[in-house]
Parts: sequence; C-alpha cells; structure tokens
Amino acid sequence: MEQSGQQQEQGDRTTPAELVRLRMSIDNMDSALIHLLAERFKITQRVGELKAELDLPPADPAREARQVARLRSLAEESHLDPEFAEKFINFVMAEVVRHHRAIAEDDPHH
Amino acid sequence: MEQSGQQQEQGDRTTPAELVRLRMSIDNMDSALIHLLAERFKITQRVGELKAELDLPPADPAREARQVARLRSLAEESHLDPEFAEKFINFVMAEVVRHHRAIAEDDPHH
Repeated sequence: MEQSGQQQEQGDRTTPAELVRLRMSIDNMDSALIHLLAERFKITQRVGELKAELDLPPADPAREARQVARLRSLAEESHLDPEFAEKFINFVMAEVVRHHRAIAEDDPHH
Repeated sequence: MEQSGQQQEQGDRTTPAELVRLRMSIDNMDSALIHLLAERFKITQRVGELKAELDLPPADPAREARQVARLRSLAEESHLDPEFAEKFINFVMAEVVRHHRAIAEDDPHH
C-alpha cells in the first residue's frame, strides 16, 4: 500500500482527525476479535470431532442456555446491550452447530 | 453457585472430561469476546456522536468495504473461514449503524 494510513482512512480530505483515530482503534479491536474467533473455532472443531466419535448430538440446548445466560450477565457488567450479546452468541453457535453437523455427516462411524 | 464448575458443565454424569475442558476454554474466549465487543461499542458510540455533530451520514459504504476486505484477509491468515468473518463484521456493523441512526435522530441539530 502506497498511501499513508491517514489518507487511506480518509476517503476524502474532510474526515476529521478524531474519526480517523477512533477507526484505528476499531480496526485493532476487530483484528483481536477475528483472532479470538479463529481460536474459538479451532476448539469447537475439536468438540465436533469428539462429539462425532462419541455419538453425542451436535447441538446441546442445555449447555447453550447456560452460555446465553452467562454472557448476558457478563454483557450487563460490561455495559454491553445484553440483547446484542445474546444475538452475538446465537450467531456464533449457529455456525458451530452447522460445522458439527458437517463433521457428524463425514464421520465414518455413521 | 453451589455446584462445582465440573458438575455445572456436565449436565449429566457422562460428559467426557475432554469436552468439559474444551468448554472451559470456549467460555474464557467468549468472556474475552464480550469484553472486546463492549469496548468496540463504546468507541462506535463516540463515532456516532461525532458523526451527528458534524452532520456526517451514519453509514459509510466505502469504509465498510475496506473493513470487510481487511478482515477477510486476516481471517485467511488465521485459518478462519473468510465467509464467516464477513458475516460477523456485517452483523456487528449493522448493529452499529442502527445505533448511529438512533443517535442522529436524537441530535438537537436535526
């Protein structure tokens, strides 16, 4: 990339400096979020394999309900909208269950 | 909570120890994700206020396209599905734009 970060971020010459700074922080947080999600999916990949080996069902509604309750409570403590936290964890868990179903279908024991 | 972490996690007595361990790691990562998202929304809250003060539009499609491209590329490097990374950032940005619209509507300059 040949442009400076500031020019890249600006799009036009009127983007205020504070907005450029805030966007740099958002980009750093998004990098951290992506890396955490990558690690999380490595772990859930192993969970999926283990469940397929042991013939456990891909989804576990009781575990999911505990996760939602815990994250809603953590969101409240952190001043994040608990509704958003619940939508977020449901979004991630839906992707995980999709992966687990795919692993279970590929499992040679089935 | 009066039960041990292990009993809580088990739901029944047959949950294998490896699954219990993996779930503890998932829970730690989810806590980190929720805290990062809480900080990210604090920053986008300030972005929304700034945009309302300066009469900038709540959404910025050129900036969003750059964010999606950057996070897809970061996902590939981290072995996370880039499609999932794109769905994730769109999910977060949709919530942010919803907040920015609400801030713009409340702004006394409008």
